[in-house]
Amino acid sequence: MIIIGELINSTRKAIAAAIEAGDKAAIQKIAKDQAEAGAHYIDVNAGAFKDREDEYLTWLVKIVQEVVDLPCCIDSPNPPALEAALKIHKGIPMINSISLEKERQDKLLPVLAGKDLKVVALCTSDAGIPRTTADRLKIADELIKLLLDHQLKLENVYVDPLVQPVATDKAFGIEFLESVTQIMTRFPGIHTVCGLSNVSFGLPQRKFLNRTFMAMAIAKGLDAAIMDPLDRQMMSVVLAAEALAGRDNFCMNYINAYRGGKLEI
Amino acid sequence: MIIIGELINSTRKAIAAAIEAGDKAAIQKIAKDQAEAGAHYIDVNAGAFKDREDEYLTWLVKIVQEVVDLPCCIDSPNPPALEAALKIHKGIPMINSISLEKERQDKLLPVLAGKDLKVVALCTSDAGIPRTTADRLKIADELIKLLLDHQLKLENVYVDPLVQPVATDKAFGIEFLESVTQIMTRFPGIHTVCGLSNVSFGLPQRKFLNRTFMAMAIAKGLDAAIMDPLDRQMMSVVLAAEALAGRDNFCMNYINAYRGGKLEI
Repeated sequence: MIIIGELINSTRKAIAAAIEAGDKAAIQKIAKDQAEAGAHYIDVNAGAFKDREDEYLTWLVKIVQEVVDLPCCIDSPNPPALEAALKIHKGIPMINSISLEKERQDKLLPVLAGKDLKVVALCTSDAGIPRTTADRLKIADELIKLLLDHQLKLENVYVDPLVQPVATDKAFGIEFLESVTQIMTRFPGIHTVCGLSNVSFGLPQRKFLNRTFMAMAIAKGLDAAIMDPLDRQMMSVVLAAEALAGRDNFCMNYINAYRGGKLEI
Repeated sequence: MIIIGELINSTRKAIAAAIEAGDKAAIQKIAKDQAEAGAHYIDVNAGAFKDREDEYLTWLVKIVQEVVDLPCCIDSPNPPALEAALKIHKGIPMINSISLEKERQDKLLPVLAGKDLKVVALCTSDAGIPRTTADRLKIADELIKLLLDHQLKLENVYVDPLVQPVATDKAFGIEFLESVTQIMTRFPGIHTVCGLSNVSFGLPQRKFLNRTFMAMAIAKGLDAAIMDPLDRQMMSVVLAAEALAGRDNFCMNYINAYRGGKLEI
């Protein structure tokens, strides 16, 4: 499972405050904690600061990569901010995110075209978030074609089918899960990713529902997630589901987590 | 989810003792507890008593149905015991289980043929438990054909693809899960069932692994399980996974369990 640590996000109050105060140590601690907990990418987002996004985003990339040997997931739909951040990024970054929305396409494709970088591709268009698997597949097909046409590699594409709350429509969970399987089957080598917490919106015990849904999504083929790697219960479910899905040789990651006292169940 | 309460099984020491002692109250309490916890069938097994299986099995059916308004899952490969138990059973029972093993077929088909009863059909043959999805599908095809040829209804068949431990071969979990999807897709109206605890054999925190695997199996289409309905953590995962899989209208079962203080997470 490719884990994108989501915590350094300016929509979170404490992070916004740390960014504004230039509190390098606070941000770096969160980056290190996520890396130690198993993140493969550190998401950085400065979108809450419209006027200074380029400056802050670049600063986040810089200070994060000072302390962790990981690529960032650069979380912005804003070309100048992305380009500034890309300039100083070390290694192969992930860009979060493009979609089939016309304005976003037009802005982002020139930034991405022909580059060796990973990109999160949201299954949404100007018509809004699709409801069914078939509608998601249609958008995914078009979006993937567009990215390949712009010289991005299939294996660098991380499609997010976008989950919606099951409390709104009971089919929303299974339509998402089925989309994961279909996308993984139709485009061998591609990835699917999601931030799955929307699924539980409006229901009690959301963290429990999110963990359960993670296991279900892994069974259906999901191979990446934007999540909080410091959530040890969620990480334990990821480890268990990966072992059960045959993605953990000799179950060693699971067994080692158990031996290291890291399972929290 | 169709839940078959597994606790009244003579391979369990306390149950064997209660059967031998004729301790009706003890057995009836376990039947009632399972019914209250949400079981749809009460499994009864007296197989530990070779010489008195018919007598004990019939007694179990009788005393269980005195206190719960549920059908039994009559757990025996032994025709005289089955026939004796069927004679006094009220409602439509489930028989656990037939397989493609020649001896079992020959013994059980005459008992089942043309009857309106449910049957657990194990994906195994004289060649042993299959390892791959393809091998399971081959056995399932043959076994289902055999049952239909003997005038059993497709919707009365509960195929158990038989899970093996992921600690033995990391592919065993996913081959099972994929079999569930394939069987449910190829035979609309059929059911899949399992006792999934084998999957975690040899690994630490087995109950946690089993719960996680349950969520994964529900995502792949499993609609019945032979399990302990008194395991509240497992039942909570079943409720959550059912809501997330779109099988719980307005998530009301989940929400009611939460409100009733029954979720244990």
